[in-house]
Amino acid sequence: MSRIPRIVILGAGYGGIVTALRLQKELNYNEADVTLVNKHDYHYITTHLHMPAAGTDDPQNARVSILKLIDEFKIDFVKSTVVQIRPNDKKVILEDGTLSYDYLVIGLGGEPETFGIPGLKEHAHFIRSINSVRLIREHIEYQFARFKKEPHRKDYLTFVVGGAGFTGIEFIGELADRIPKLCKEFDVDPNHVKIYNVEAAPTALPGFDPELVQYAMEVLQKKGVTFKIGIALKECTPDSITLADGEEIKTQTVIWTGGVRGNRLVEEAGFEAMRGRIKVDEYLRIPGHEDVYVIGDCSIVMNEEGRPYPPTAQMAIQQADVLAHNLVASIRNSSLKTFKYESKGTVASLGKNEAIGIAMGRKLKGGSAAMMKKIIDLRYLYIIGGIPLVLRKGYFN
Amino acid sequence: MSRIPRIVILGAGYGGIVTALRLQKELNYNEADVTLVNKHDYHYITTHLHMPAAGTDDPQNARVSILKLIDEFKIDFVKSTVVQIRPNDKKVILEDGTLSYDYLVIGLGGEPETFGIPGLKEHAHFIRSINSVRLIREHIEYQFARFKKEPHRKDYLTFVVGGAGFTGIEFIGELADRIPKLCKEFDVDPNHVKIYNVEAAPTALPGFDPELVQYAMEVLQKKGVTFKIGIALKECTPDSITLADGEEIKTQTVIWTGGVRGNRLVEEAGFEAMRGRIKVDEYLRIPGHEDVYVIGDCSIVMNEEGRPYPPTAQMAIQQADVLAHNLVASIRNSSLKTFKYESKGTVASLGKNEAIGIAMGRKLKGGSAAMMKKIIDLRYLYIIGGIPLVLRKGYFN
Repeated sequence: MSRIPRIVILGAGYGGIVTALRLQKELNYNEADVTLVNKHDYHYITTHLHMPAAGTDDPQNARVSILKLIDEFKIDFVKSTVVQIRPNDKKVILEDGTLSYDYLVIGLGGEPETFGIPGLKEHAHFIRSINSVRLIREHIEYQFARFKKEPHRKDYLTFVVGGAGFTGIEFIGELADRIPKLCKEFDVDPNHVKIYNVEAAPTALPGFDPELVQYAMEVLQKKGVTFKIGIALKECTPDSITLADGEEIKTQTVIWTGGVRGNRLVEEAGFEAMRGRIKVDEYLRIPGHEDVYVIGDCSIVMNEEGRPYPPTAQMAIQQADVLAHNLVASIRNSSLKTFKYESKGTVASLGKNEAIGIAMGRKLKGGSAAMMKKIIDLRYLYIIGGIPLVLRKGYFN
Repeated sequence: MSRIPRIVILGAGYGGIVTALRLQKELNYNEADVTLVNKHDYHYITTHLHMPAAGTDDPQNARVSILKLIDEFKIDFVKSTVVQIRPNDKKVILEDGTLSYDYLVIGLGGEPETFGIPGLKEHAHFIRSINSVRLIREHIEYQFARFKKEPHRKDYLTFVVGGAGFTGIEFIGELADRIPKLCKEFDVDPNHVKIYNVEAAPTALPGFDPELVQYAMEVLQKKGVTFKIGIALKECTPDSITLADGEEIKTQTVIWTGGVRGNRLVEEAGFEAMRGRIKVDEYLRIPGHEDVYVIGDCSIVMNEEGRPYPPTAQMAIQQADVLAHNLVASIRNSSLKTFKYESKGTVASLGKNEAIGIAMGRKLKGGSAAMMKKIIDLRYLYIIGGIPLVLRKGYFN
């Protein structure tokens, strides 16, 4: 090859940033031009967003400046929004420019899936970015302040979380912890506050060990959460929701965590996709487009039973290792690695010092699970930023 | 008198709380029954409210629990809202009960005066209580969070303060200090933020020394404030204001500080009142109702030119001394004191370390005025709570 190959990475989420860091380490000088594109100049730790959303932690602790992670001598960073991917032209159109590539990595992340439920897209909040969680936090605080002006408006203090999956449950744990503090700050009687969790599936945390799910629900019920499990959300308006059983709940605050889909840009690019997600080959490439890799929420990896794994941070980080290896191998014409997901366990937090999980083949609950959650969080900080980042963002509280 | 006389004090603002404290000190055991009625179980320091409103200080620093100030063995405290004053029955109707009195002290405070400007009452915010300033603070923060979701909505970041009197100017000083911090917190370009101050009178801070007014405006203009002086506000809608010269400013946030009137309850009680304020006699009683004293924003005291003094904290505190003396004298059948206001100076803050004022016959500006402001604040804390309160709330920042 007479020219240095150009690698473009779209998105600096888990998949994108770890891929960039691995390439930065593996590639030799002038072996490839690597460009990382991201909408913000920071990477955010999505699995941590439920805390700033509830206001139990500073959003600052859930993000890291990209330029503090990557080495700008080795990787170009472009802060821009991707508008279009043109695989046939091998180009990416940005809001303010165009990039050509020889290899493309799509790590654009997912979008909320509202399943066509009327009003949800317009009126619900979503835990998806630093901006969206700051809005949720401010929105919640604002309701307390408004209630003190209009004390007959109990609906201001009714909070509905749609979805009892991982994000929904973790957010509820934090919210339930925050409510007593908000009540104290705004002189509000805690009895006026209601938290509902609505889930269409027959259980909270589907796929989790039933004993642990039971434990989680009991912990959250004790904190004042009312569960509506096995009941679908039918409609969302600016000041209420309606459930499938006809019940109407007056509320100004719906946080929807009930679904994630892939990115519309991958559909618009003409790739074969299911809800914005692409089934990748064993090397994490798009079949028929061997120069395009997909990682994270936009990719589908099948488990041994032929069903897609849920897209998680853990999945994206593991993909990044293989993906970066395969990119380097492609450039060097050496052999590619196949990807195989290996679950290292899963822990869901339920607020301060409470969690449930499976790790190293063992069921964990309470303080030990919460400790494991902290270790997982710190491990990720270590992966992307080493000891300095652990010390800076590790919030040992 | 065969029965112990009953004194009822309505309102625990500056006038009410200082009256109660003076009575507590002066009255002998079983000389009178004193009952203090207040809507909240705390007294708030109205002249400090512009800080928590802008978010530059904690609302906690602007209030004190009433039970920490009064001695419950000497004074009964009733947390309730006054519904009606019946001077002919010598009764006060509360939301949840009735009180009979021999002597009544009306210290119910004022209400915002909107001069019939359409939409102002419905859509503007007012700096008048702990609840209202918490709402302002949350409302402002919410606009920053909303802007990040809808970056085309520049009107979210336009803040209009109506009135360039004392409260308006002091609030603007704090708001201008807070904006850079909010911009940093929410990743907002400070150039998007606009602060307008609209005042119908031909000058800001009418009645103040023109040289000091000039200084104040320059300080605030440097902090980014745009003044519209001599231009009346014509209309306020949920998302705009219109000025008398036809200019429309798109905004979600109007804070109205342009006028204060007395309390509607004194009008409804049948007393002769002007905008809810009663012209009291030289002993601070209502002419024709010698058992009813009025203090603070509900009272009118004339200056030597026959014009009413503006109602201020300083005025109310001075009234309380004379009022308490006169109550005790009435009970003891000794002679009453006449009230005469004596200005001890006035300082308006313009944000951190900036102020203007007149004290001890001298013009002050900048750091020395700010220092004087701090001394005035601390002096008041000392008056109501002694050294312990000064230490607890004196926020030496």
